[in-house]
Amino acid sequence: MKYLGEMGEDALIERLIQLVPLGRNAEAPGDDCAVLAAKGEFLQLLKTDSLVEGVHFLCDADPRAVGWKAIARVISDFAAMGGKGRYFLVSIAMPSHWEISWLEEFYRGMGDCLLKHDCLLVGGETCRVPLGSSAVLTISATGYVSQENCVSRSGAKAGDEIWVTGRLGGSLSGKHLSFTPRVKEAEWIVPFLKPTAMMDLSDGLAKDLPRLAKASACGFHLDRAAIPCNEACTIDQALGDGEDFELLFTLPAGTDTSMWASRFPKLELTKIGCMVEVSEGEILKGGWDHFS
Amino acid sequence: MKYLGEMGEDALIERLIQLVPLGRNAEAPGDDCAVLAAKGEFLQLLKTDSLVEGVHFLCDADPRAVGWKAIARVISDFAAMGGKGRYFLVSIAMPSHWEISWLEEFYRGMGDCLLKHDCLLVGGETCRVPLGSSAVLTISATGYVSQENCVSRSGAKAGDEIWVTGRLGGSLSGKHLSFTPRVKEAEWIVPFLKPTAMMDLSDGLAKDLPRLAKASACGFHLDRAAIPCNEACTIDQALGDGEDFELLFTLPAGTDTSMWASRFPKLELTKIGCMVEVSEGEILKGGWDHFS
Repeated sequence: MKYLGEMGEDALIERLIQLVPLGRNAEAPGDDCAVLAAKGEFLQLLKTDSLVEGVHFLCDADPRAVGWKAIARVISDFAAMGGKGRYFLVSIAMPSHWEISWLEEFYRGMGDCLLKHDCLLVGGETCRVPLGSSAVLTISATGYVSQENCVSRSGAKAGDEIWVTGRLGGSLSGKHLSFTPRVKEAEWIVPFLKPTAMMDLSDGLAKDLPRLAKASACGFHLDRAAIPCNEACTIDQALGDGEDFELLFTLPAGTDTSMWASRFPKLELTKIGCMVEVSEGEILKGGWDHFS
Repeated sequence: MKYLGEMGEDALIERLIQLVPLGRNAEAPGDDCAVLAAKGEFLQLLKTDSLVEGVHFLCDADPRAVGWKAIARVISDFAAMGGKGRYFLVSIAMPSHWEISWLEEFYRGMGDCLLKHDCLLVGGETCRVPLGSSAVLTISATGYVSQENCVSRSGAKAGDEIWVTGRLGGSLSGKHLSFTPRVKEAEWIVPFLKPTAMMDLSDGLAKDLPRLAKASACGFHLDRAAIPCNEACTIDQALGDGEDFELLFTLPAGTDTSMWASRFPKLELTKIGCMVEVSEGEILKGGWDHFS
């Protein structure tokens, strides 16, 4: 059997779930719902995120890398709040002429990323889209974070410094499929630097920094010359390409970040501006917007 | 503005979330993740479910009914385990030429169903599919159930009776868009009848009964003449049409169900067969399969 259309749905799922780490709960995948024990002392995080063929990946992309990306995007979102992922579900909407082997590799890629981050797949479903329609792969997940470590986008104050991990731009040349979510970095940043706001850069600094500023009821001044660009990228690309999956966060002015270099010697940490009152802020255009 | 393409993604979401009941948590929709307090004494249920244009609904269907259906399908799944829904997320993948008003009505429909079932939307995202691709609307949700009331598909034993609520077949004539998930019924069935296994009928009795039997390592004898058919439906339609969203469950032989009629006078409860050893079971073909 080579195509989804040649295999029943149940048989397909049975085959696919062997490729990933599964929950050992009373109700494993295959039942109506995944049943989980509650975690009393932590806040629970929830996230859903879709990957669309022709938008987030091309049909000739390595399906294992697409699977990695599907999970890593969500783990990056959890990290951006100071948290970690735990239980994942996947919804696969695909035309019936899609190759089973593609989906197997996709599941393996999900499995790679789930294993690496101590996460489990606990359920999912598949359904058909009409011929000629793009595949849509949707991940939903729970994560957790202790109350004291939970960081939102909305805590920045005028006067705070704006910082970013790594380098930006040029993601489409490959990094968008193979990035490592900044989980360890966030795990260190939160207790040691005590960021006032944090998010991950998924739609480009030009789109995401205004989001953080708006959520915090602040404006910002961006030092364009300070933006750390990836090799062969212009500042405009660093601002607008998107899918950097680096951490963007704000720190009270004068926070000592000197320990960073010894903890993460291979990853840059760069101050790129400061938060100001709304009335004094600048306007930044560009970045990735799905519908414009 | 009439089309998604005329409105930025953030503005669209801001507009849409006004149409539904929202969580009052520290982190409301708009942040990277929805943050929830944990529920200590209950099992948590998780579910993801996609609706595809051209498969689960047609592009000229009433979008408010499609929104109702998107939520109701998931609530039906929770009910099938004896539980209730709580926190919902939605992922919208649509072509950019889609009308905003359609999506607004879709959100209203979700809001109708969320409100009716004491559920909250706590997050979501939108993304674009290429022109000509079908829209894919994915719901993910948490639910909860007390440990003592949690019913799986896998507890049926040879000798148990097979029961079904309501009437089956002909869902496409309208019921698939307007059904009421059997939450109250499940809430009564679980403590009073103590079903050994339960599920909701989404892909047709011919597909779902074998699933329940397989999960329970049983066979079944189906009394075809006893199957309660909707008006103008044949038994084959009742077996195969799918999207009935009735409850299918098993009871120890001789369980007294006489109280049902006084509690739910408008809804039938029908015995349609019995579970047997695997070796004595019959084979049932048909029902809805996405990929065959």
